[in-house]
Amino acid sequence: MLTYTFKKDSGISLYEQLYRHIKEDILSGKLKAGEKLPSKRALSGHLEVSVITVKNAYDQLVAEGYIYGIEKRGYYVSNMERPLSASPAACVIQEADEPTWFLDFVTNSISAEYFPFTAWAKLMRRTILEQDKALLYAAPYNGAAALRNAIADYLHQFRGMTVSPEQIIVGAGTEFLYNLLLQLLGRDKVYAVEDPGYSKITKIYESNGVALQQIELDENGLSALQLRQKNADVVHISPSHHYPTGIVMPITRRQELLRWASEGEDRYILEDDYDSEFRFVGRPIPTLFSVDENEHVIYLNTFSKTIAPSIRISYMVLPPHLLHKFRQNLSFYSCTVSSFEQYTLASFLSQGRYEQHLNRMKNRYRQKRDKVIKLIQEGDLSRRSEIMEQDAGLHFLVRLDTDLSDRGLQERAKQNGLRLALLSDYYSRPECAPPHILVVNYSGIELDKLSEGLRRLANILEEKEDVR
Amino acid sequence: MLTYTFKKDSGISLYEQLYRHIKEDILSGKLKAGEKLPSKRALSGHLEVSVITVKNAYDQLVAEGYIYGIEKRGYYVSNMERPLSASPAACVIQEADEPTWFLDFVTNSISAEYFPFTAWAKLMRRTILEQDKALLYAAPYNGAAALRNAIADYLHQFRGMTVSPEQIIVGAGTEFLYNLLLQLLGRDKVYAVEDPGYSKITKIYESNGVALQQIELDENGLSALQLRQKNADVVHISPSHHYPTGIVMPITRRQELLRWASEGEDRYILEDDYDSEFRFVGRPIPTLFSVDENEHVIYLNTFSKTIAPSIRISYMVLPPHLLHKFRQNLSFYSCTVSSFEQYTLASFLSQGRYEQHLNRMKNRYRQKRDKVIKLIQEGDLSRRSEIMEQDAGLHFLVRLDTDLSDRGLQERAKQNGLRLALLSDYYSRPECAPPHILVVNYSGIELDKLSEGLRRLANILEEKEDVR
Repeated sequence: MLTYTFKKDSGISLYEQLYRHIKEDILSGKLKAGEKLPSKRALSGHLEVSVITVKNAYDQLVAEGYIYGIEKRGYYVSNMERPLSASPAACVIQEADEPTWFLDFVTNSISAEYFPFTAWAKLMRRTILEQDKALLYAAPYNGAAALRNAIADYLHQFRGMTVSPEQIIVGAGTEFLYNLLLQLLGRDKVYAVEDPGYSKITKIYESNGVALQQIELDENGLSALQLRQKNADVVHISPSHHYPTGIVMPITRRQELLRWASEGEDRYILEDDYDSEFRFVGRPIPTLFSVDENEHVIYLNTFSKTIAPSIRISYMVLPPHLLHKFRQNLSFYSCTVSSFEQYTLASFLSQGRYEQHLNRMKNRYRQKRDKVIKLIQEGDLSRRSEIMEQDAGLHFLVRLDTDLSDRGLQERAKQNGLRLALLSDYYSRPECAPPHILVVNYSGIELDKLSEGLRRLANILEEKEDVR
Repeated sequence: MLTYTFKKDSGISLYEQLYRHIKEDILSGKLKAGEKLPSKRALSGHLEVSVITVKNAYDQLVAEGYIYGIEKRGYYVSNMERPLSASPAACVIQEADEPTWFLDFVTNSISAEYFPFTAWAKLMRRTILEQDKALLYAAPYNGAAALRNAIADYLHQFRGMTVSPEQIIVGAGTEFLYNLLLQLLGRDKVYAVEDPGYSKITKIYESNGVALQQIELDENGLSALQLRQKNADVVHISPSHHYPTGIVMPITRRQELLRWASEGEDRYILEDDYDSEFRFVGRPIPTLFSVDENEHVIYLNTFSKTIAPSIRISYMVLPPHLLHKFRQNLSFYSCTVSSFEQYTLASFLSQGRYEQHLNRMKNRYRQKRDKVIKLIQEGDLSRRSEIMEQDAGLHFLVRLDTDLSDRGLQERAKQNGLRLALLSDYYSRPECAPPHILVVNYSGIELDKLSEGLRRLANILEEKEDVR
């Protein structure tokens, strides 16, 4: 009969030791397929363990399929096809380290020191206290009502948009919402994006394998003519403030686009209003959504850019007929944002904290932008640069005077610890871009390093392209 | 010249009033396309407002494209194609109200009273304090390192899985991860799901428009034979504990599946280990992932089911070559879970709180299940029912004795305030399902209403189908 020894102080229960022994014998082939195992009582007596220990071990082996029981006859070894072995130690390629930059002109990080962390933390604590167990229940698919109400109020007051909270769908980031929109509008459509534009959007469409057209911009942004030529169905734009050119689409263009959309039942404009909060001059530009009369515009915005990148809360506003379709086809998806953060943000909005925060941010960013521009104008770089556009929210453009190619420039900058984004980086065909235009994302720039960083850049500009 | 009156106490700045007046005149056609506007100085004198007020109004109109400026000549009205009007009041269909149930056997809600809310709230507060501004920075695409480390430790200790934290990708819910997996594995693949099965998974595949095969289960679950017959490339299974049948896939089947997967380079098994924490008998079943030697298994699990549905944190474990592919193709996606919740959960895991919580939950659910079963066995329903499977985690199956059809049964139950799930609800072809099998999701059932609910159900069972 099966004979095993048991360890007393191993911390492993007797039943588990027995289970392991038998399993080992099955895997090694010592116990053959179809072989009958001793009865529970017999093995219990033989090994001097309780019947329940044997029972538990057999049950586990049955549950995992190593043995099987036949009523009134007993237990038999299963037909194992090949011995199993432990998983090989995971051989994982380590991720390449990001280089550490002396100065990073690319990452548009919200400066953490600007965020009213104390107020936010207070709201978080109050949310824990007040919402209590409500935090344990999932929000509805479209987001917590409190948050959708607060967003609708905000849109009404600050974007002049009249929307019902029902039209708002909350999700964990705009990228996630785009994945939903592809499912809502259909993968059989031709999607169009701005060129130059935000490359992540292109990546999302490509990664989802839908037909994609790049639409070249002129000085007023995207034109409906090109949409027609390229048979686009759905176009993704940022009319209030295009990144990285900073173009504000004029009203005539907007009307052209709306007319284009109204000409086809399945034509839609995805209006990404990202960054519109940080326009520094004049009133905010009315949204396309609010002038659209034919339910062809979907409005999107995010709090990740204005509060903190770790706050993954975005939303979209659907026109009524699409809302209806969303409920029918996509409301099975659970809301991706935790209730806790939704309630916290709802309070932040409804108590006017968000407005305060935006105003404070606008002032600070304006000051920061002015300082960055002043340092550029005062240093060595000034002789070799021209600031092109100062009204473009959290970034501006600088034309550089150099003989280097854009790639050569970036490569040398990298060797000097500088991370640069150039306008050509945002073109689907970089060779078609105007060269040497630096996109300065200034919000994350450390001012105390800037003079040195600009000095390095000025030196690089004087270099010549290697003849390789 | 343009003549407007201004309101003094309207709270609207002069420049904005002027902007609105001119815009209105353009939209109404009073000011015609191409018409020249008065110079800023002239209009300022005429209206008795400052030049800067006129300048701001003109700038805003230029920014929005209503007028345009020509250097050294002045400002002209743009060519408006049609008058814009305010967006029509959003006409939104209100969402239908969910019926209120007397007793709900369907929703498998985690009982909020079981959750260690005080401990969790404490950890939340500590996270606010300790992480401070780190909370404002976005986690990397794959999740915060602290959380991935904690998950890797947990998997090692409680699931016997040796994985590197690098292999773990954190996301806001399993549904979101499935959307990523479709992009990772490719939409050109044939996906296969278990039939019966969890309908949400089917919906996700359908909504993403990929080829989908339903694979019928036998008493041991899904078989590789059918995968071959249906030319499946990727199969989605819950081998540790299938919902709703409760089948635990025996080791022979698992080996069959692994062999099937190893025969094709692009064949993958998505192992959804959801609910495996609540097996009440014996040791947990080893995962397919841990016995796979050929990198063909992707492991998925979630904390939404074990902690609270509002905690939208799931994760998947990728084999090394897929991790490599993920980094190349999909790491541009931002992590969908807020840093705050990731840090809180990481502490909850690494302080052993999660283990404690699971043990407590298991005990409480076992007790609750026993009470529910006892009430079924003691009441009127006992004569017309047979409890089929008691080991299936958070639900069990009851065979009902009735002449009613499944739909008739559900309809009558609804009229009596009872929400029932029947096994046939989980079949792609309900007519092929064994009838009258009730799926009792007991975790959310209110015990004090249960006797009355069961009495109502017993009465319904005696009814005859209407002859309509």
